[in-house]
Amino acid sequence: MKRTLKSQTDLVPLLAFGAHPDDLEFACGGVVAKEVLLGRPVNFVICSRGEAGSHGTPKQRVAEAKKSAKLLGASLEFIELDGDAHLEIKSGHAIKLARIVRRVKPGIVLGPTVVENQHPDHWRLGCLVRDAARLARYGGVKELRNAAPHAIQQLLFYAVTPEAEPSDVTPVFIDVSGPEIAAAWTAAMRMHSSQTVARAYVELQLARARANGLRAGVDHAIALFPGNPFLLDSLAPLSRGARGF
Amino acid sequence: MKRTLKSQTDLVPLLAFGAHPDDLEFACGGVVAKEVLLGRPVNFVICSRGEAGSHGTPKQRVAEAKKSAKLLGASLEFIELDGDAHLEIKSGHAIKLARIVRRVKPGIVLGPTVVENQHPDHWRLGCLVRDAARLARYGGVKELRNAAPHAIQQLLFYAVTPEAEPSDVTPVFIDVSGPEIAAAWTAAMRMHSSQTVARAYVELQLARARANGLRAGVDHAIALFPGNPFLLDSLAPLSRGARGF
Amino acid sequence: MKRTLKSQTDLVPLLAFGAHPDDLEFACGGVVAKEVLLGRPVNFVICSRGEAGSHGTPKQRVAEAKKSAKLLGASLEFIELDGDAHLEIKSGHAIKLARIVRRVKPGIVLGPTVVENQHPDHWRLGCLVRDAARLARYGGVKELRNAAPHAIQQLLFYAVTPEAEPSDVTPVFIDVSGPEIAAAWTAAMRMHSSQTVARAYVELQLARARANGLRAGVDHAIALFPGNPFLLDSLAPLSRGARGF
Amino acid sequence: MKRTLKSQTDLVPLLAFGAHPDDLEFACGGVVAKEVLLGRPVNFVICSRGEAGSHGTPKQRVAEAKKSAKLLGASLEFIELDGDAHLEIKSGHAIKLARIVRRVKPGIVLGPTVVENQHPDHWRLGCLVRDAARLARYGGVKELRNAAPHAIQQLLFYAVTPEAEPSDVTPVFIDVSGPEIAAAWTAAMRMHSSQTVARAYVELQLARARANGLRAGVDHAIALFPGNPFLLDSLAPLSRGARGF
Amino acid sequence: MKRTLKSQTDLVPLLAFGAHPDDLEFACGGVVAKEVLLGRPVNFVICSRGEAGSHGTPKQRVAEAKKSAKLLGASLEFIELDGDAHLEIKSGHAIKLARIVRRVKPGIVLGPTVVENQHPDHWRLGCLVRDAARLARYGGVKELRNAAPHAIQQLLFYAVTPEAEPSDVTPVFIDVSGPEIAAAWTAAMRMHSSQTVARAYVELQLARARANGLRAGVDHAIALFPGNPFLLDSLAPLSRGARGF
Amino acid sequence: MKRTLKSQTDLVPLLAFGAHPDDLEFACGGVVAKEVLLGRPVNFVICSRGEAGSHGTPKQRVAEAKKSAKLLGASLEFIELDGDAHLEIKSGHAIKLARIVRRVKPGIVLGPTVVENQHPDHWRLGCLVRDAARLARYGGVKELRNAAPHAIQQLLFYAVTPEAEPSDVTPVFIDVSGPEIAAAWTAAMRMHSSQTVARAYVELQLARARANGLRAGVDHAIALFPGNPFLLDSLAPLSRGARGF
Repeated sequence: MKRTLKSQTDLVPLLAFGAHPDDLEFACGGVVAKEVLLGRPVNFVICSRGEAGSHGTPKQRVAEAKKSAKLLGASLEFIELDGDAHLEIKSGHAIKLARIVRRVKPGIVLGPTVVENQHPDHWRLGCLVRDAARLARYGGVKELRNAAPHAIQQLLFYAVTPEAEPSDVTPVFIDVSGPEIAAAWTAAMRMHSSQTVARAYVELQLARARANGLRAGVDHAIALFPGNPFLLDSLAPLSRGARGF
Repeated sequence: MKRTLKSQTDLVPLLAFGAHPDDLEFACGGVVAKEVLLGRPVNFVICSRGEAGSHGTPKQRVAEAKKSAKLLGASLEFIELDGDAHLEIKSGHAIKLARIVRRVKPGIVLGPTVVENQHPDHWRLGCLVRDAARLARYGGVKELRNAAPHAIQQLLFYAVTPEAEPSDVTPVFIDVSGPEIAAAWTAAMRMHSSQTVARAYVELQLARARANGLRAGVDHAIALFPGNPFLLDSLAPLSRGARGF
Repeated sequence: MKRTLKSQTDLVPLLAFGAHPDDLEFACGGVVAKEVLLGRPVNFVICSRGEAGSHGTPKQRVAEAKKSAKLLGASLEFIELDGDAHLEIKSGHAIKLARIVRRVKPGIVLGPTVVENQHPDHWRLGCLVRDAARLARYGGVKELRNAAPHAIQQLLFYAVTPEAEPSDVTPVFIDVSGPEIAAAWTAAMRMHSSQTVARAYVELQLARARANGLRAGVDHAIALFPGNPFLLDSLAPLSRGARGF
Repeated sequence: MKRTLKSQTDLVPLLAFGAHPDDLEFACGGVVAKEVLLGRPVNFVICSRGEAGSHGTPKQRVAEAKKSAKLLGASLEFIELDGDAHLEIKSGHAIKLARIVRRVKPGIVLGPTVVENQHPDHWRLGCLVRDAARLARYGGVKELRNAAPHAIQQLLFYAVTPEAEPSDVTPVFIDVSGPEIAAAWTAAMRMHSSQTVARAYVELQLARARANGLRAGVDHAIALFPGNPFLLDSLAPLSRGARGF
Repeated sequence: MKRTLKSQTDLVPLLAFGAHPDDLEFACGGVVAKEVLLGRPVNFVICSRGEAGSHGTPKQRVAEAKKSAKLLGASLEFIELDGDAHLEIKSGHAIKLARIVRRVKPGIVLGPTVVENQHPDHWRLGCLVRDAARLARYGGVKELRNAAPHAIQQLLFYAVTPEAEPSDVTPVFIDVSGPEIAAAWTAAMRMHSSQTVARAYVELQLARARANGLRAGVDHAIALFPGNPFLLDSLAPLSRGARGF
Repeated sequence: MKRTLKSQTDLVPLLAFGAHPDDLEFACGGVVAKEVLLGRPVNFVICSRGEAGSHGTPKQRVAEAKKSAKLLGASLEFIELDGDAHLEIKSGHAIKLARIVRRVKPGIVLGPTVVENQHPDHWRLGCLVRDAARLARYGGVKELRNAAPHAIQQLLFYAVTPEAEPSDVTPVFIDVSGPEIAAAWTAAMRMHSSQTVARAYVELQLARARANGLRAGVDHAIALFPGNPFLLDSLAPLSRGARGF
């Protein structure tokens, strides 16, 4: 995904946290493709090497993630927390993520939803990201003193699978229609070939995006779940709605 | 409220339905003031003359509504449904509202929330507005055949009082800060002097907007409740969030 | 859809109410196809001729419904309530539906969900069906005295569109995998050609069923929403779950 | 409880986790009695010796659990996590439970609901069981490599007390009517005499089951709460519903 | 039930609306018995003669209600709305109930919950009562002009059956322990012998009250569901809680 | 705040836990002021020195808390858990809090709500307090054996900020009107001058209490959220409701 000529200085970075090497691509790769196309810097932070999965070695999975992030045009870093399928909610983890927030200075942060009935690492990472977004702003956290506090503007959650969609939050649909976006997203998902051989993940995500798109009157749309109410200057940004039926 | 020089053709009209002559001003007058200031045409449709209220005659209340709409820069029309405190949910009412939707051709429609624990006319009108927004789009409704179908883009609900705020919809906060907006909104509420003499309505609304504003890091904000998920082209409109604490 | 040789006397009838001529096929045609295949008598009751829709004449739509019901192997009758897009909740309507319940004597009844943010006729019919299922059981309803009271065993709601899915009821997924079922369902939907030319309804329903199926580890599944808790004799029927991820 | 002659090979085992020696009997002993009667192997895993309770020594309570499990016809094992009233959510605990899942290879797993407003050990064990059911399926979890991955079919939660019943999950009622079941369940509860001397636990559970039964039109029923939507082959298993009123 | 010597002037009347002749006794007869014992005047308003029920003639049922109200010490009046199983939500009905509110001038009003999955008359009456409580307060309702506006202090909903209990409102438990209360409540329920011969209604209600009582640490308790948050002068009234487990 | 002459023996102590030195004053200082005025002993337990905050040193903040508690008439103690912004949910912490519960023997306990979308320390402390209230009652917890078990009567949660208000619990409003209460509460909040210089915390809390008060028909009210249903002897305490609109 090449960035457009539009100056990047207009767009504060997007920081996206994933528990496993393929979560971001499957859950919201189309949104990432679109943001990069629009000129926004995107940073991926992956918190395990997928070593507990049924398919693929950590080495393969890291390689897949690197190729995929490159294809999408996102930067990529791996961090160590407790390892795949072992994640726990510890204040030290949240502080580690907060340090990254202070370094990257994102406007928008993406993390997995906090719905508990999904892969245990997903919702726990979502909790840690939510806490990290706050800790990044608190001036007195001693472990973070060497970086200036940073207040993000928005926290958005993504749902890797259907059961991870919260029922008590109104989603926002991001239009990811258009052949360029579709191609980039699909290619990024397929890069994770160790996963796609075993399960119809690509088809699942496209079916979800297609159902959302049909509901909203566009080709494909990805649902994200806001961590806080949106603050808008006027009604103008609301000039389209998911009112297909 | 004078419109800015910005061409109105950029902005499709806003159509706002109120059950009583003062509901729109109290619930979302600040949003109206801002939209008018930004150049959007705003149409008020009031569905009773407030004749069941404890204070003010219908004649007084109509006069107050006219002065207030003029001050805000909104057009105003009164329609007859079942009368104040007598509103029922009938398909004929929804069709009547749908006819107005087809005539005004709004992008965004405002109506009261459908939370049932509030003034009986409020939630019933909300239901009728929600249905009307669909009926306006269906080509074969016989009573509507003399006007072309119209699909609105967004339905937003407003909460006249705190208990009318739905707990299962994520609100969107509209920033209504700034002395010009505050002055217009407050003046519009005070125009309804038959109501404000008896109850501290103005103070209630300002306290709510102030609490929302403090939560979101601005002076004042009004919460609206989307009828459907928002569809956005990218994450850019989400560059501010209600993350004050 | 031909019935299997299995005796029909084993299976009490399924009674399915639809507000418009195509609702049942789009929402749960796959379930109907499967039940007929398993030998269960299925009765469709359609409560309008779709005369308010944007596409198709009432005559065309009735013809489409007849062909589709025949293809699926369901009986079909049309009843008059208030007409398409004009449905209201009246006790007389519920009694009319209750009379059909007493005549057909179904074990399971299907109706649209009562989620209000959908076509106004859908949720209102859902409410009427829910009430009718109770009225059919009350011995003293004077208009129903010429038919013996009948207690249904289950009320299940279907969601014609995604926004009609309730968020506070746990769905049950019916496995509609298999080429025979898929072919019958798709053909039944396509019979409603006046509707499918205008909107990608078929694709929407297949995308939803595919996403459910992938979630549950089968090809396709349709979600239904129980009106009451299930009563089971043992855990045996629960030997499969939607645990794909 | 003697097993019926029906071959056990038809029925995959039921694996039930309890935080304390009496939780399973009080919450769902009637279901266990019925499953054993139907020929299903049932395995109890108890995660403390009840040493923090107000009544009974660990030794007494272990003895009570042994007698009760024997009476019900379930196998029984005790494991050590953090001790009664000290349970924490740790990935090591979930892995320990997952190892048992891989060993027992159950179709259905029972654990306490994850509603947090109950005994702290209950909901924490529910979370651990839910996570364990997933971990048992992931092929790469290093601590589990010596046992083959196992995918359970259903996770069902039980509510030890009324406040542990989740409000956002539709329960399934299991019919536990019949003198044989009632006698076995009641006897199993009474085996925990160190607990029943102090509190009217037996009466509470019978009152709950009686209210459920009356609602569903049977003598007694126990509500279980599904962890995931049920997947069914047809509507046939739904031929009874809790539609008593 | 004889009133205590305590002056009735201390206690504003309780006004209880029931859809059928036996609803109040079954749902909250214990609360009524206790209030009467404490000296509060209680007024029953019954909105049908139960003519659609499976058992009992209208004449029998009216007689049963009269005997039961007398036994409890409540006044009783019957009003006509649309008849049993025919109730509709009409503004005229709400106004009729509001007129009674203005006449009786109650502090607390009781009506059935507005949960829709129950007898159709129950939730509709609940909606009408809720609206009536507001209309009674609005000074300009023309049909009510001959009676002074009256603002009630509390609206409490009762659940005739378990499925009528709302899941999104925190109940308040009223302690109805004690032999005198139990005897009066049970006797009042049994007065409705046309109903109790057919169904185990008395046992259902006692089982529910017993389960609530055990949860709360008392003999029996009845759950009521507040229509609005309670306003208290201090924490003192909260000195007991349903914290049995 | 001077206690009234009323005997303290009438009122069991109130025990209030705060995560940071200012949380109790901002969230519910008005309630504390009123309870002290009515003669109830109030004990503050603060679980950090606010050392991670953006403003104020731990020394300053402890001094502010001492002055504020003295002004309100509450006793004050600081305890060490994991430190500000580092709090984790550990059984040892809950036991530590339970030990305090056994020592103070409160009737009512206050803690922050368990809504997770707020300062990470707030909801974690809320969870710990909820668990501690149970552990205090269990006779066999070995670490607590040197103090007699104590069963509290009520657990009430407070919301430090608007987003901490739970949407699924019906609040109770405590009337904190009156110049004496207002003055004490405002002064107590202002004592935390290290915090109030940076953020409009005082104005936020007064706006919230004013909006609640207007809704309920009094000057100011603070919403608290019950941990369990209230158990009441009769309807008498419910003689006021938040029915302002």
